[in-house]
Amino acid sequence: MRVTIYNEYLHEVEAESVRRVYPDGIHAELRSAVLEHAPGAEVRVATLREPEHGLTQEVVDATDVMLWWGHKAHAEVADAVAERVQRAVLGGMGLVVLHSGHYSKPFTRLMGTHGSLKWREADEKERLWSLQPSHPILAGVPDSFELEQEEMYGERFDVPDPDELLMISWFQGGEVFRSLMTWRRGHGRVVYFRPGHETYPTYRNPHVRRIVANAAAYAAARFRRDESRSPETPALEPVPNPGKEHVLKP
Amino acid sequence: MRVTIYNEYLHEVEAESVRRVYPDGIHAELRSAVLEHAPGAEVRVATLREPEHGLTQEVVDATDVMLWWGHKAHAEVADAVAERVQRAVLGGMGLVVLHSGHYSKPFTRLMGTHGSLKWREADEKERLWSLQPSHPILAGVPDSFELEQEEMYGERFDVPDPDELLMISWFQGGEVFRSLMTWRRGHGRVVYFRPGHETYPTYRNPHVRRIVANAAAYAAARFRRDESRSPETPALEPVPNPGKEHVLKP
Amino acid sequence: MRVTIYNEYLHEVEAESVRRVYPDGIHAELRSAVLEHAPGAEVRVATLREPEHGLTQEVVDATDVMLWWGHKAHAEVADAVAERVQRAVLGGMGLVVLHSGHYSKPFTRLMGTHGSLKWREADEKERLWSLQPSHPILAGVPDSFELEQEEMYGERFDVPDPDELLMISWFQGGEVFRSLMTWRRGHGRVVYFRPGHETYPTYRNPHVRRIVANAAAYAAARFRRDESRSPETPALEPVPNPGKEHVLKP
Amino acid sequence: MRVTIYNEYLHEVEAESVRRVYPDGIHAELRSAVLEHAPGAEVRVATLREPEHGLTQEVVDATDVMLWWGHKAHAEVADAVAERVQRAVLGGMGLVVLHSGHYSKPFTRLMGTHGSLKWREADEKERLWSLQPSHPILAGVPDSFELEQEEMYGERFDVPDPDELLMISWFQGGEVFRSLMTWRRGHGRVVYFRPGHETYPTYRNPHVRRIVANAAAYAAARFRRDESRSPETPALEPVPNPGKEHVLKP
Repeated sequence: MRVTIYNEYLHEVEAESVRRVYPDGIHAELRSAVLEHAPGAEVRVATLREPEHGLTQEVVDATDVMLWWGHKAHAEVADAVAERVQRAVLGGMGLVVLHSGHYSKPFTRLMGTHGSLKWREADEKERLWSLQPSHPILAGVPDSFELEQEEMYGERFDVPDPDELLMISWFQGGEVFRSLMTWRRGHGRVVYFRPGHETYPTYRNPHVRRIVANAAAYAAARFRRDESRSPETPALEPVPNPGKEHVLKP
Repeated sequence: MRVTIYNEYLHEVEAESVRRVYPDGIHAELRSAVLEHAPGAEVRVATLREPEHGLTQEVVDATDVMLWWGHKAHAEVADAVAERVQRAVLGGMGLVVLHSGHYSKPFTRLMGTHGSLKWREADEKERLWSLQPSHPILAGVPDSFELEQEEMYGERFDVPDPDELLMISWFQGGEVFRSLMTWRRGHGRVVYFRPGHETYPTYRNPHVRRIVANAAAYAAARFRRDESRSPETPALEPVPNPGKEHVLKP
Repeated sequence: MRVTIYNEYLHEVEAESVRRVYPDGIHAELRSAVLEHAPGAEVRVATLREPEHGLTQEVVDATDVMLWWGHKAHAEVADAVAERVQRAVLGGMGLVVLHSGHYSKPFTRLMGTHGSLKWREADEKERLWSLQPSHPILAGVPDSFELEQEEMYGERFDVPDPDELLMISWFQGGEVFRSLMTWRRGHGRVVYFRPGHETYPTYRNPHVRRIVANAAAYAAARFRRDESRSPETPALEPVPNPGKEHVLKP
Repeated sequence: MRVTIYNEYLHEVEAESVRRVYPDGIHAELRSAVLEHAPGAEVRVATLREPEHGLTQEVVDATDVMLWWGHKAHAEVADAVAERVQRAVLGGMGLVVLHSGHYSKPFTRLMGTHGSLKWREADEKERLWSLQPSHPILAGVPDSFELEQEEMYGERFDVPDPDELLMISWFQGGEVFRSLMTWRRGHGRVVYFRPGHETYPTYRNPHVRRIVANAAAYAAARFRRDESRSPETPALEPVPNPGKEHVLKP
């Protein structure tokens, strides 16, 4: 499994409060989570400030599943790179979108919706409930678990109905949220997993780590095929006018 | 019900073979289909060559459901207009995408996929089978019906799994296609209906007309609300740190 | 709209604590809720202790939508009546299952699952969140509302993934629950709506009443057709051996 | 992977025309299909005329995935055995229902619907089209393939909307059918795969064999847990009346 972790990597550089939590960057914690549960994985890291954000065509082509963490600089991601990631998913690559990635360009392009939600940062408790304990992403995860402090995300989360709804969060302040969902898009699989605010040590929680690693394995491409074109195809059974002249599709 | 019919309106102007079939434009036949089954509807027509393709913000705001027929000039639709239509759907407007609209900008933006498929123009027979005769879009429509000549569209149609799969087509040349589907996106409803190639009199078929009109009524907005923003919200129950300082979401 | 309300009608007869809340029976409150929002509806009531529980074939055939409230005596409902209700739904009748009806025979037969869940009665607060404010069942209902005291139902609720997930509940004690869902089965529509424990005045809450009435209207049959048989059908196109001898399907 | 193949095993015994095609029984061909692609599988066979149809509680408990082929004697399957299989699926066991099993007791109980369809036996051609070539059940299977002669099954197939629609069939006589579908029920996975009429050598087709084996592997249990009961659960957060007296759920 070839994993590429995209991390915006600005908060950890700019804010002491975040650096204290993730001294080596959020990507370092995500990488260790993946390797803890999938020791043979090849993990690469890409960050916003690199050329093409580290996501050249070559890198994307060599990626089975991409993890995406971004927050304050979604707008700085080049449209061409966002489109490249979208096309890779349609061609079979997996994409695991984390927390504030609900507003990232690849995610909103793949969903077709705003991705909006309610939110609040108040050091409150989140409890996640499993709806499908037999699902591979929840293998080894208890039926519920708590995060002592997290940012709150509340419904209505503006996304299409998922193919699979796997967890729902309860928040101390009174809200609920669909926290773990999957969608098939083209030949690829998209997973959204809610927790992971930069000011809390969420990615050191063992259950969160397990879910991140399981999600990567679940979404990883088994298959790559570009299907952006609409081929004209000969008939398999007799038709009245097989050689008819006509306008070609773009 | 306020209906806006968008028709590219190029084939009928440029090609004698199409003008013979739709002398007043495809939009005229669609309008008469809607009015036949919803006599009280207000129907407006918009075409590609008008300023903003006839789809100004004012027109879109005053539309409950939009029908979209386009084929050879999808690329000429301005991105700003495509985004306007997409946002209107997310805010509650209905969108009924017809035939070659599978490649239109509003549809592919809302789906997040390529919208590709197999195709062939050979004057062949299409037979459509109903999967949900009790669905409002299929009210008054028999369990199956035939179109003597149509363009063939074949699977794999690259779209997200629909919320509702209502009809499947059988083609004489050996293919099958999911021909009538719906998806909820944001507060709006998208319907895709396959038949309607410009060189055949498909929109004069009584069953097709009924489906077009039913689809418009089904998708028409009951509700309009912009939900593009993610509001910060106060807690409804006590939380540890309600006044915490933090970075604002865009 | 012809509505039949099935109420077990035992708690109200046997327990003073329940009679205080629903002196005329839960069915009386449900009837008034339906009539408040659909004044022209014909509403009939059926209870467990009547012959055939008041649900003769004649009554079921004359019902567009049935509401079902039962709790302690699911096992006393005759299998023949449960099957009659199931078949009516498959033929197009609507069924709105309320609260403890998650364990009723018609519901579990239609779902194919146990319908199990976590529960607790502790006078705690429930807050329901809307996921689809544009859905007809949620017309006139705010984006969230509270019930000061209710029984808790918690996930995992053992039901098939719904066609539509409309509300999620937050409970004071820490759980979440998918509280308003719909499933199409055959030609009919099933709605499940969670609140409604017999010791609380839930069915006098205006939002709950609105949802009950909206759900009845949404699920009400537009269509009735028995499709229990598998007809042998002649080919529509030439086939090699149209008169072949063979074993008949039961 | 522990596989149990249930075969009714009457046609092969009673009819020379079937014995010629499947001299060792349909189960023998299914077993060889599974072992061809999953050499390490433990495969057991059960038939109708054995005590408890060979499906004792012990056998079911030791089964990760069950294949089900039945046709003319669905009614002879004991209700207790059908319920045992249903409960096993809800607890995590996989179930792959083949061809005429659309009318079997375990399948209709799990679906909650009639399972009816149109049919015809006329030695006609079937062509199956893949909708999700990246799905594990379709690994190694081409985008479409033909069966020269098969029984026809046509829509409307009376089943709940599937979680995954993987293949659609085209029939020479003019019908279409959703031929490969999956549903999650409880902790288990149900797969339906259409082809396999007893008078044709369908289970010797390499693509059909591959799909049968892939489906078994896909549906095989990762997990077994009985969740038929609804546990009363203590609150995780403070509630007003934790020790309240109340009626117990059955």
